[in-house]
Amino acid sequence: MNKISIIGAGRVGETTAQILAEEELCREVALYDVREDAAAGIALDIFQTAPFFEFDCRLRGSHDPAVIAGSDLVVVTAGFPRKPGMSRSDVLAANVRIIDEVTDHILAHAPDAIVLVVSNPVDTLTYRIAQRTGWPRQRVFGQAGVLDASRMAAFIAEETGFSALDITTLVLGGHGDTMVPMPRYCTINGVPVSHFIAPDRLAAIIDRTRQGGAEILALRKNSSAYDAPAAAVAAMVDAISNNRRRLMPCVAMLDGEYGERDIAMGVPCVLDEQGLAQVVELELNDEERANFTQSAASVRADIGRLAELDH
Amino acid sequence: MNKISIIGAGRVGETTAQILAEEELCREVALYDVREDAAAGIALDIFQTAPFFEFDCRLRGSHDPAVIAGSDLVVVTAGFPRKPGMSRSDVLAANVRIIDEVTDHILAHAPDAIVLVVSNPVDTLTYRIAQRTGWPRQRVFGQAGVLDASRMAAFIAEETGFSALDITTLVLGGHGDTMVPMPRYCTINGVPVSHFIAPDRLAAIIDRTRQGGAEILALRKNSSAYDAPAAAVAAMVDAISNNRRRLMPCVAMLDGEYGERDIAMGVPCVLDEQGLAQVVELELNDEERANFTQSAASVRADIGRLAELDH
Amino acid sequence: MNKISIIGAGRVGETTAQILAEEELCREVALYDVREDAAAGIALDIFQTAPFFEFDCRLRGSHDPAVIAGSDLVVVTAGFPRKPGMSRSDVLAANVRIIDEVTDHILAHAPDAIVLVVSNPVDTLTYRIAQRTGWPRQRVFGQAGVLDASRMAAFIAEETGFSALDITTLVLGGHGDTMVPMPRYCTINGVPVSHFIAPDRLAAIIDRTRQGGAEILALRKNSSAYDAPAAAVAAMVDAISNNRRRLMPCVAMLDGEYGERDIAMGVPCVLDEQGLAQVVELELNDEERANFTQSAASVRADIGRLAELDH
Amino acid sequence: MNKISIIGAGRVGETTAQILAEEELCREVALYDVREDAAAGIALDIFQTAPFFEFDCRLRGSHDPAVIAGSDLVVVTAGFPRKPGMSRSDVLAANVRIIDEVTDHILAHAPDAIVLVVSNPVDTLTYRIAQRTGWPRQRVFGQAGVLDASRMAAFIAEETGFSALDITTLVLGGHGDTMVPMPRYCTINGVPVSHFIAPDRLAAIIDRTRQGGAEILALRKNSSAYDAPAAAVAAMVDAISNNRRRLMPCVAMLDGEYGERDIAMGVPCVLDEQGLAQVVELELNDEERANFTQSAASVRADIGRLAELDH
Repeated sequence: MNKISIIGAGRVGETTAQILAEEELCREVALYDVREDAAAGIALDIFQTAPFFEFDCRLRGSHDPAVIAGSDLVVVTAGFPRKPGMSRSDVLAANVRIIDEVTDHILAHAPDAIVLVVSNPVDTLTYRIAQRTGWPRQRVFGQAGVLDASRMAAFIAEETGFSALDITTLVLGGHGDTMVPMPRYCTINGVPVSHFIAPDRLAAIIDRTRQGGAEILALRKNSSAYDAPAAAVAAMVDAISNNRRRLMPCVAMLDGEYGERDIAMGVPCVLDEQGLAQVVELELNDEERANFTQSAASVRADIGRLAELDH
Repeated sequence: MNKISIIGAGRVGETTAQILAEEELCREVALYDVREDAAAGIALDIFQTAPFFEFDCRLRGSHDPAVIAGSDLVVVTAGFPRKPGMSRSDVLAANVRIIDEVTDHILAHAPDAIVLVVSNPVDTLTYRIAQRTGWPRQRVFGQAGVLDASRMAAFIAEETGFSALDITTLVLGGHGDTMVPMPRYCTINGVPVSHFIAPDRLAAIIDRTRQGGAEILALRKNSSAYDAPAAAVAAMVDAISNNRRRLMPCVAMLDGEYGERDIAMGVPCVLDEQGLAQVVELELNDEERANFTQSAASVRADIGRLAELDH
Repeated sequence: MNKISIIGAGRVGETTAQILAEEELCREVALYDVREDAAAGIALDIFQTAPFFEFDCRLRGSHDPAVIAGSDLVVVTAGFPRKPGMSRSDVLAANVRIIDEVTDHILAHAPDAIVLVVSNPVDTLTYRIAQRTGWPRQRVFGQAGVLDASRMAAFIAEETGFSALDITTLVLGGHGDTMVPMPRYCTINGVPVSHFIAPDRLAAIIDRTRQGGAEILALRKNSSAYDAPAAAVAAMVDAISNNRRRLMPCVAMLDGEYGERDIAMGVPCVLDEQGLAQVVELELNDEERANFTQSAASVRADIGRLAELDH
Repeated sequence: MNKISIIGAGRVGETTAQILAEEELCREVALYDVREDAAAGIALDIFQTAPFFEFDCRLRGSHDPAVIAGSDLVVVTAGFPRKPGMSRSDVLAANVRIIDEVTDHILAHAPDAIVLVVSNPVDTLTYRIAQRTGWPRQRVFGQAGVLDASRMAAFIAEETGFSALDITTLVLGGHGDTMVPMPRYCTINGVPVSHFIAPDRLAAIIDRTRQGGAEILALRKNSSAYDAPAAAVAAMVDAISNNRRRLMPCVAMLDGEYGERDIAMGVPCVLDEQGLAQVVELELNDEERANFTQSAASVRADIGRLAELDH
């Protein structure tokens, strides 16, 4: 890819920019932030790591949204982060206004870009951007399950002592308390984790995964998690930029898949250079189905609030 | 790790040395080969890649077996490779003599090393070295299933178009026509491959995997496969050197696991800095059990020939 | 290396921890911070990137200084960062108290560690820790010139368009306005930069390098630079951990080299697994000598203030 | 880059293909070789390393030259390697015929490609391909000095014990006994190597560099060097593919630079996505000038033989 822009130069945005540059996933990274100079300072600080990580990706930061002009991909991280005790939905009202403005910048300056949404609540805001742009779901989707799965994998590594290289996990549904970890698709080098972890311990890991973001927020206090979220975004960008056809859970607009429609939720998708190439439908067992439905209801409640906010 | 030695500076040995140095899996790589100067030439050629790959691992090659002195790990690649039309067993008689000599070098110069056997027939020669050294299975084991699994993964990538990053495969049993691919543990980001590949196509992939080495030999003609075999060895060394506790199929001496004893065969193992830390027992279904038993019989036949050769 | 600890889980500390883990420069990273839970939250966030960067380094964070017990290397980043308009010396008084306490933790819990000082003013605080521990300079030294050089290299890349991979720069002296960039040792793939950059432009780059930290602080406003500082620290740790014998400018206690004694300043050093193995003396020309002397005077003034602060 | 082809699937070609795939310098690598099946076998063996090195680059090998169709870059490694005791010029007559045929394949199937020549004698064959294609020097150039410089760097690392990461070397002139090492541009982190190496030792290193290929050939006996040559080629491809604007010695058609015309020789060049963007003229001192002139005479003698061979 030639150019990737990041909207919002907070911690997730900055850390994402660092990874994209280090891994040379594009030739140029542009950072946009409403705060004067902040994005420029970050771009400069990151560029000064080039001699260490040996990259030739150039970085630019600005508080002029035109800095994103001509982007192939735009990562949206803008918005208020939640504070300890808040849920992702609590920031919805404030963030919808920001996201609408961001969407207009994208429409104006990067009309051909793929949009990867990270701002929370990510399901609802992905839906919002898809509505406002009118673009196909291939080009507007969000990050949620890749991060949730990495948390679950880290917990499994801690529990079992196995290498992070061998652990595969899958988490579907909304990005919140109703997320749907899929333990039967969680494996250690292909072997289901249930072979290695007792049921009660696995249940505890699933619960902890659901609260994974809140756990870090409670510890960090003055910041949400950002190292793992940024790495999750970068992994999705890598799949797109390198046309990998990776199977990753994404927040996708559903059109009948999994029995849902007119909603954005976390489902397994194929990512390639076109963006979200395909939604993959897995058969759900009864418990998974129930969890998924509950998760959909929760997302739909937030989407319902969008209409109210528009009045 | 401080020092890793490679016995046999043929293609597999050379390529393994290149990867170990590039990835800095140790501070020093020693190459031993009976041919005068060959190992020295290879060590020098590889060391001249240091400015490109930016490693500080030093390399030494010699036809004096004392070059392996003090190794933490010894990779055994010596022996005649098979020629087109030959099975791995056809080289047994010739290679046992070589391997016995190699074993004596290890006993003399690297008495505390972990031994990773690559020479074919790998199951039988691993058994042979274990017998001759009398060392515990933790320190004497072989490479087979890691390579077989990578071939199967490559075929699945080709068939489905999915990224190699997402494909996990598992192959047990002997390293030959009777190897035991385990399709139900083969997944694409955790989802069983049967979701993506029709049964007849999957059967064809399994067959092709069983013939994976022969297929390359038939194409290359004047050389066995060595790129993937060397990369497989390096992956195992990485797991050991970095104390990863990876779950990898290894040729392990069995002591009742999987119903077998006094035999070396491919089974899932945990690799850490001590070497083969543990054999993991999976429940086999009837078909897998039958395949495994057949594979054991085939290995046992070769082991039986060892006694004859000793007369 | 087995264990590396980072004291101070601010931005530089956190980013350093991320790089050390990602690059697997040790088996365990411990983070210590006086704020309750902050270090634990960071350690957890970083560990959740393991599935992406595929590392098996474990991380622990705590506000109990005993978390650093048994470290092979301790990176000291604790202290108040400067605010826009402040010089590095302005934080001296406040940071000496913190650093003394940190030093006592190191003496108590990691008595065999190598200490790499990052807190500012780094020259004076390196001197302070060397005095308080009484340890040889091999084990107590600071980071300054590696970062300054990376900034200069980034500016040269921007000016010339040449790849960051080809640019080498050297900066000596104190880490402040009196630092001593050495343009005749600044090269593009070995060719002096003066071949490619006109004298007035090179002079501008040198000036900008001297103000490199302040420039970023003025842009970021609520944070000092930390991406490049952390990467600089990680590069030094890599040289030590991998026993590279790299030639890097370090803040070293001088014992007559460069005509100075009883002072810590930036000079070219050799880094290997023992730490600072050797100070390399380059012949300075008249201008370089004058700059170096001026820089020494500036550092000595700060060191003089230490005595006052002790009353 | 989308597609890179390698002509000649000997050791250099194969090892180059492995590195290009591993480093994902393009989406597809095609290997062409006149031997039936050999290239296909190599492509398959390398593709089976994808699960280890985690690349999604696809590989194809064929003895049909149409396999190179649509390449963005073609690496020419075809030709007889020299045997012990032979100079690079000794293979000229045999290789010109091969190279002419290869050139015709490129003209037919990859008319827009950049051509990177590796076959020996590389100066003369680069000249030949430039003549036969009539393409500008930007798109036809050869590898020589990058390898020679890496050898010199490896010797300096061995001599001084310094890290390969810090050593920069420069070698100009023809790729043979008359190559022109440029010790004053050889540095250790920017400091001239003469600071660290006594004159007689440096002279010995220069001599050894001139004989660097022959030294390895004499040791390997049945093969020329290929690990370092392939890594050198890959470094040049990386500079081009990632548009790095690296300063690297290349075998370039000269048009008055360095006082030479109508000849291809090793001079410092800038490599970017267009290929050889620029020849950089350094001032030579008397000794360097004399060496360069002598080297030019040697290349010109070989070029003169081309005309004879055409009769």
